[in-house]
Amino acid sequence: MTKKKYFSQKNVQDLERFTKANLINSISGFKSANLIGTKNKNGDTNLAVFNSVCHLGSAPTMIHFTLRPHTVARHTYENILENSYFTINAVTKDTIEQAHQTSAKYNAETSEFEATGLVEEYHNDFFAPYVRLSPIQLGCKYINTYEIKENGCLLVVAAIEDIYINEELIADDGFVNLDEGGIASIVGLDGYYKPEKLARFPFARP
Amino acid sequence: MTKKKYFSQKNVQDLERFTKANLINSISGFKSANLIGTKNKNGDTNLAVFNSVCHLGSAPTMIHFTLRPHTVARHTYENILENSYFTINAVTKDTIEQAHQTSAKYNAETSEFEATGLVEEYHNDFFAPYVRLSPIQLGCKYINTYEIKENGCLLVVAAIEDIYINEELIADDGFVNLDEGGIASIVGLDGYYKPEKLARFPFARP
Repeated sequence: MTKKKYFSQKNVQDLERFTKANLINSISGFKSANLIGTKNKNGDTNLAVFNSVCHLGSAPTMIHFTLRPHTVARHTYENILENSYFTINAVTKDTIEQAHQTSAKYNAETSEFEATGLVEEYHNDFFAPYVRLSPIQLGCKYINTYEIKENGCLLVVAAIEDIYINEELIADDGFVNLDEGGIASIVGLDGYYKPEKLARFPFARP
Repeated sequence: MTKKKYFSQKNVQDLERFTKANLINSISGFKSANLIGTKNKNGDTNLAVFNSVCHLGSAPTMIHFTLRPHTVARHTYENILENSYFTINAVTKDTIEQAHQTSAKYNAETSEFEATGLVEEYHNDFFAPYVRLSPIQLGCKYINTYEIKENGCLLVVAAIEDIYINEELIADDGFVNLDEGGIASIVGLDGYYKPEKLARFPFARP
């Protein structure tokens, strides 16, 4: 029998700051790896990696992601509030190093596109920049922010207006084979993974 | 150059219902695979798979997950509202079939533990059942629900009170090597994956 280590809430709060962050960000599982692209009114672009983008409904198509105050996400959020439009771009195994580098604290005038070598792409007059080599690109429009009053985190809710997907990844039933596109997954703040398919199951009945 | 398929919001809404659900649930990336364990006041236990559990802060340790009305998640949420306590248990590659089967619409008197063969485990008088073989078990206490008014989805926020982790998975810096525990990831509603580690990166600086 494998031995388990136990942490009470007090044990967790007594941990060194980065140890605590690594532990708590890891334990809820694998997360999505996405780059959010924005642009401010001066035309400065911004790109930032997020591990908290989740689906929130299909009709209309909505997603959410979370923000903490005083993180690199601030430029992203300010640009979204200013212009409403942003992009979500899947991170692939070939771009994990550049994706992680976008988490560095660049100033507002420095574009993470230029700093990392990821290339901007624009589709159909959409205001915000996409990441050129990303196999899944989502053009999104800001809807609302819900403040989590218990800790001040922000839940940002948005609609997906435009979807671009490498067409060979799309199965006949609409499922998208993320593994075939080399799409990555994140653990914690800095661990990058390449998931391999185990199985797809039919609709479950008792 | 890989050809991209484009979907406008109208294209998406014109898709067949399950095709639309598969597409929209896939495109935001790999998700966490967790079983939420609950118990009602009659002592009936419930277990349900979720792909939306995310971290929401470290001090205090909080997570959130989303619920749609009229899904199998209803028993889970009713039990949580009734008793406040629930567990989150990581799904492993060896339990993906049972985990998926918990998404079937069993009645409230039928325990998904019994129906799937997953074994209940209790720690230290905690009210809700854990999944015995899960390498990461989180004892959680309900905090609040935020209704997403745009589509009626519910964001459930909870505190993590107790953490049990197979100790060989925990790195010296607090990071948890989910891959070494065989922990799975989910795409969409029914795709299960086993992530392999690519890299961990140091804290990024400009």
